[in-house]
Amino acid sequence: MKRSGIAFAVLSASLGFTWAQPIRPQPEILSRTPIRIPDIPGYLTLKCDFHTHTVFSDGSVWPGVRSEEAWREGLDAIAITDHIEYQPHKKDLPTNHNRAYDIARRGGEELDLIVIRGSEVTRKMPPGHLNAIFLESSEPLDTEEWRDAAKVAKDQGAFIFWNHPGWTGQQPDGVARWYPEQTELFEKGMLHGIEVVNDRDYYPEVHAWAIDKKLTLLGNSDIHSPVGMDFEIHAGDHRPFTLVFAKERSAEAIKDALFARRTAVYHNSLLIGDEQFLRPIFESSIRVLRPRVSIVGDGNARLQIQNLSDIDYELLIADNSETEGIRIPRRVMLYGGKITRLTVESLSNDRTEEKDYVLRYTVKNLRISPDASLAVEFPITVSFSPEKP
Amino acid sequence: MKRSGIAFAVLSASLGFTWAQPIRPQPEILSRTPIRIPDIPGYLTLKCDFHTHTVFSDGSVWPGVRSEEAWREGLDAIAITDHIEYQPHKKDLPTNHNRAYDIARRGGEELDLIVIRGSEVTRKMPPGHLNAIFLESSEPLDTEEWRDAAKVAKDQGAFIFWNHPGWTGQQPDGVARWYPEQTELFEKGMLHGIEVVNDRDYYPEVHAWAIDKKLTLLGNSDIHSPVGMDFEIHAGDHRPFTLVFAKERSAEAIKDALFARRTAVYHNSLLIGDEQFLRPIFESSIRVLRPRVSIVGDGNARLQIQNLSDIDYELLIADNSETEGIRIPRRVMLYGGKITRLTVESLSNDRTEEKDYVLRYTVKNLRISPDASLAVEFPITVSFSPEKP
Amino acid sequence: MKRSGIAFAVLSASLGFTWAQPIRPQPEILSRTPIRIPDIPGYLTLKCDFHTHTVFSDGSVWPGVRSEEAWREGLDAIAITDHIEYQPHKKDLPTNHNRAYDIARRGGEELDLIVIRGSEVTRKMPPGHLNAIFLESSEPLDTEEWRDAAKVAKDQGAFIFWNHPGWTGQQPDGVARWYPEQTELFEKGMLHGIEVVNDRDYYPEVHAWAIDKKLTLLGNSDIHSPVGMDFEIHAGDHRPFTLVFAKERSAEAIKDALFARRTAVYHNSLLIGDEQFLRPIFESSIRVLRPRVSIVGDGNARLQIQNLSDIDYELLIADNSETEGIRIPRRVMLYGGKITRLTVESLSNDRTEEKDYVLRYTVKNLRISPDASLAVEFPITVSFSPEKP
Amino acid sequence: MKRSGIAFAVLSASLGFTWAQPIRPQPEILSRTPIRIPDIPGYLTLKCDFHTHTVFSDGSVWPGVRSEEAWREGLDAIAITDHIEYQPHKKDLPTNHNRAYDIARRGGEELDLIVIRGSEVTRKMPPGHLNAIFLESSEPLDTEEWRDAAKVAKDQGAFIFWNHPGWTGQQPDGVARWYPEQTELFEKGMLHGIEVVNDRDYYPEVHAWAIDKKLTLLGNSDIHSPVGMDFEIHAGDHRPFTLVFAKERSAEAIKDALFARRTAVYHNSLLIGDEQFLRPIFESSIRVLRPRVSIVGDGNARLQIQNLSDIDYELLIADNSETEGIRIPRRVMLYGGKITRLTVESLSNDRTEEKDYVLRYTVKNLRISPDASLAVEFPITVSFSPEKP
Repeated sequence: MKRSGIAFAVLSASLGFTWAQPIRPQPEILSRTPIRIPDIPGYLTLKCDFHTHTVFSDGSVWPGVRSEEAWREGLDAIAITDHIEYQPHKKDLPTNHNRAYDIARRGGEELDLIVIRGSEVTRKMPPGHLNAIFLESSEPLDTEEWRDAAKVAKDQGAFIFWNHPGWTGQQPDGVARWYPEQTELFEKGMLHGIEVVNDRDYYPEVHAWAIDKKLTLLGNSDIHSPVGMDFEIHAGDHRPFTLVFAKERSAEAIKDALFARRTAVYHNSLLIGDEQFLRPIFESSIRVLRPRVSIVGDGNARLQIQNLSDIDYELLIADNSETEGIRIPRRVMLYGGKITRLTVESLSNDRTEEKDYVLRYTVKNLRISPDASLAVEFPITVSFSPEKP
Repeated sequence: MKRSGIAFAVLSASLGFTWAQPIRPQPEILSRTPIRIPDIPGYLTLKCDFHTHTVFSDGSVWPGVRSEEAWREGLDAIAITDHIEYQPHKKDLPTNHNRAYDIARRGGEELDLIVIRGSEVTRKMPPGHLNAIFLESSEPLDTEEWRDAAKVAKDQGAFIFWNHPGWTGQQPDGVARWYPEQTELFEKGMLHGIEVVNDRDYYPEVHAWAIDKKLTLLGNSDIHSPVGMDFEIHAGDHRPFTLVFAKERSAEAIKDALFARRTAVYHNSLLIGDEQFLRPIFESSIRVLRPRVSIVGDGNARLQIQNLSDIDYELLIADNSETEGIRIPRRVMLYGGKITRLTVESLSNDRTEEKDYVLRYTVKNLRISPDASLAVEFPITVSFSPEKP
Repeated sequence: MKRSGIAFAVLSASLGFTWAQPIRPQPEILSRTPIRIPDIPGYLTLKCDFHTHTVFSDGSVWPGVRSEEAWREGLDAIAITDHIEYQPHKKDLPTNHNRAYDIARRGGEELDLIVIRGSEVTRKMPPGHLNAIFLESSEPLDTEEWRDAAKVAKDQGAFIFWNHPGWTGQQPDGVARWYPEQTELFEKGMLHGIEVVNDRDYYPEVHAWAIDKKLTLLGNSDIHSPVGMDFEIHAGDHRPFTLVFAKERSAEAIKDALFARRTAVYHNSLLIGDEQFLRPIFESSIRVLRPRVSIVGDGNARLQIQNLSDIDYELLIADNSETEGIRIPRRVMLYGGKITRLTVESLSNDRTEEKDYVLRYTVKNLRISPDASLAVEFPITVSFSPEKP
Repeated sequence: MKRSGIAFAVLSASLGFTWAQPIRPQPEILSRTPIRIPDIPGYLTLKCDFHTHTVFSDGSVWPGVRSEEAWREGLDAIAITDHIEYQPHKKDLPTNHNRAYDIARRGGEELDLIVIRGSEVTRKMPPGHLNAIFLESSEPLDTEEWRDAAKVAKDQGAFIFWNHPGWTGQQPDGVARWYPEQTELFEKGMLHGIEVVNDRDYYPEVHAWAIDKKLTLLGNSDIHSPVGMDFEIHAGDHRPFTLVFAKERSAEAIKDALFARRTAVYHNSLLIGDEQFLRPIFESSIRVLRPRVSIVGDGNARLQIQNLSDIDYELLIADNSETEGIRIPRRVMLYGGKITRLTVESLSNDRTEEKDYVLRYTVKNLRISPDASLAVEFPITVSFSPEKP
């Protein structure tokens, strides 16, 4: 029995739960695992999940669990966004729209995790579900009309985004649709961002809208269960989250970055965002250890490429790669945290020269638009010499 | 967004949570992993955790999570045992002692998991904390006097056990003590079992009491958090649980077995219980694939031993093992689910005979008392022949 | 230092290597992991790799390693098939075509692993590379003309098969071609089988030929390195291997089965073979634990399906599945060793009846021809009852 | 079939083996995994294994495998040290003492891995087995008398060390003994280092000798099999290796460091070496993220400690740790690559002050002598404030 006695009563009442002082060493699972996605010039790269639920709407965990989970997974910030209109537990747990945030925030303070107050305005489509985050209070969003709720959120200075536009629960054919109601919200300054990823789903059509309308890209978990029930964290699986490129590690800086559209989305192996963010992430992740190689006769040489990030980069050769007289792999995986060798073969036996090449690849899983991936280059120098007889 | 719309409203209100119909294949983490611990002659071996908490006392999960977790982990039965006296969430979630069980049971019914109504009577030591399970109603246990609560439980026909007698929260020096209050309960037929294992702790002194006083052995998780936050399930870690040797897979049969003291405890790599149960578990787990081997000269031969269970058995050679003219390993691990080779070396070069041996080992992690482990035998036959010149 | 002294000298000279008697328990990696693929009516399902190399041609391990690896991975039989014509190590290790088998066989005898004598006749295309296994001696295959080598193999009663017909080393465009030389071999009874899988490659066009010409299906590793360098065994990866449906566990029974074309191929998650073999494997793997379910109102029920094998079965709903008034998942993974729930939803609120359904799925990864997968059925019974008001 | 055709013939003959250009992305297992053990002021920390075998004595792999394995595991350097006197494969593979190195070195050149020429002088005890590394040629070590072999090695400028002094094959009672022959070698400048770790064994008595006699500490694998057969690399297991603190990443710098005794040994979770090396490794690994914390009432606060290395540090509280009015954990694991929280509890309810503490721990697995572990300090500042009423 871990959690009783007077001291624990106080603690548990505020946080939901905690852990006692270990006599044996604590198990590894209590640790935080930093996520290695590099900062980019001028900004910190913060990892944020802006869509989570608790028992205070239809989630299945006490709010403190959300802070603890996020800390362990290496996130920097979460928003608690319980449903306003959907309160299936209310007979047991009377509605209190601000309470989940208050509990989770105290857990976050202990852990140096940023917790943001939010709410999910939960209406039938259109306009569907909207998250408002950075609220002063959730209570006033409990209105008859969704227009009133959106107005309240805007008046509180909240950042408002459209959740899971392609969700089959509201679009049975799986096709996201942009309604006049969305136009209305957008034009009134009540729609700042949009989920291109929700849970396990990526919506390419929504990605195109976001680029077109200059909406902030968001990717969130919309988690209801304990995160370990939905994601195989210990096998390298991760919840989707939003990368926020922020001036500093603070709630205010996150809010600024969201309004300034400085975000990208990390979903399964996919990184989704503008080239201005994805390119420096890739470049800060990758180091070619041996850009000068030698080949004897029609032999080969191995470049060594280190990936300092946790993201696996999948490279596909580009049509315009320079490959005169050499052969390079068509596909290369640069696994996260590893050093990969990339073999360069000479196609002839009798060259004697030093030659510069620019190897060009597309990083398939760095998606800068629904149709395009990031193009990258590796300049190398190859010294060819004939085989000794 | 997974859980909205009318149908979900109904479902979530009853169960707490669920999963939508998959379009893509469901991830492996949603599966149930059977625990391979064999049945024994005359009884099914059921895996049960009789001590769990939810948000309805100081736990951090909605009750439906307890059923879902237990199903996935391969358990057969759980008891929901929220604290009666300790209700730190009550300002948010008004006290309702029967409610957590009602919610968890509905989840269990869907999953064919047995869920048992229980409560934890939570008093300072003595008598400390008592679990009463197989209650008709938890409400009447909310009494001023602990003696009254115990009497109510007994009158309802409940099985009553003492929780974590060596818990440092109530025994700061870590030594379990048997008080007159325990004697009183025991003599009045209000104490049927005792936790020799709670969470990560095994209490050898309590194990000795249980043998001496013929109390039912119990090992339970006392879980408050999502189980995946405390146990590294996917790395082979497991919560402690009680093996119940039952006539059939039903709540009634479990109750009968508990009163008849047909249990054992599985904790880390340790199996704790009476020899009458541990011996058939070991024997049903193990198959010697090649009990007849041949050795040429002073060479060696390999026995192959298959372990059909998930338990790793750690064998230590016994003083009385027969080893005339041969050498066998002093320590052997029979890993769960694997086939292990055990090498038999001949110590002389010139034997020509066939000889029977009884190899004797102690299975260190099968604990039949605080001081003794199970002794096992492997009868083998070795044919010795001289090396060809 | 593990392997010195007189006793070790004898041992190492014969086996290549071994392990000393452990003082501490041996690590788990020394164990054998049984592969759970069920036997089928009338036959044992043996797991065999008929294409492996050693230092005696261009492989990088001493022959004893091949036996040890195969034993640990749970295989029943391997063939050692070093190249006859390709002997890149011969300046250091003079050619001796029979020697690798002799060494590996002694290792196999100790481990109860069947080791088969083979050789790879290594010619340019056509006819490319041929494996002859169950040879009496490899030496006579070292001939000027490949036709002579094939004749020698046939005269020794060998089973002969064509290796990796689509290998890019001999078919740069990656398309397998059937040459007159293959027809010649086939008509002379010198071509009994064909690799539809070699290493990481599956050749669908070769699969079609095999069906058409009644050639035995083979899938082999063609391993040159230590197996743990090419396959991530401990993460669930496996080398490709041939399932042989044999009357008993012996070399002779394997040979009979090969000539009788009783084989299938296991490659990544794919099982490739005739329906007569794949159907009983699936059926022996799968058990529907709860074929009778009840649904209240427009709720749902969960079938529980246990997969006793190690193969992950990927199910895709069939067009002719019975689904009147219910919804079932379009895709289902039945993970190896797990129990999966399959949710059945009622589409109406007011049914009161008991109805039998036959759920029909295609098991995508059980490939009975290049174009077709195995069709399977799950008969279930659903009791519908209206929701209580 | 991967390795045929003219180009491959050339390649395989030189390297032993290689991999073809991938059409599909290469599997992760082909990657190199950097070992995160930090450099120390003034020196690079190189990871080296100075004791390995191949088929050219009693090992079971072609020499190129040793380079490939070491590269993948993240090592910087290996020595090939086949036995001079023990040549069990010589009937198949005629003795050639220099050949294994020549093959392995070519593999190393391609991979930028340092490969060092060595030999194991393999005699009965005393003097037992000696490794000589940085040889010009191994051939002259094949002498009748071991004294002559040692002299040849010395004359070539080799670094000479005593292998596995406590090996049960030469010390059946498991006790290492220092013989007059060792004194003789030592006094003649023919004994520079000693293995305190060989394979899975650590010899504390040898550790004491090394300190006493100022011998260089070495820990090596003495690997004979493919490394993946003996070590569960993918589960975090690793072969033992020697850390060399070198001026640069070159063979010459390694040799200098060995003669200057700038080494430590990494074995299982144990780091063994002089305090002057272990302290900066620990200090460069560890960063206290929040050394200033606040506690309200008798609550607690969490320090966050990041471990940037791959080594798990196990901390045990020191007797002289400052803990006036607070409680800190007695044992703490700082897991490799993780952030650990260390909870500080206030023991009283009514403090109002800011206080500096020096938390003192012993890092159990950093062994600076057979009897002592590294003592470390964490200075922190705690602000206490009373609970608000």
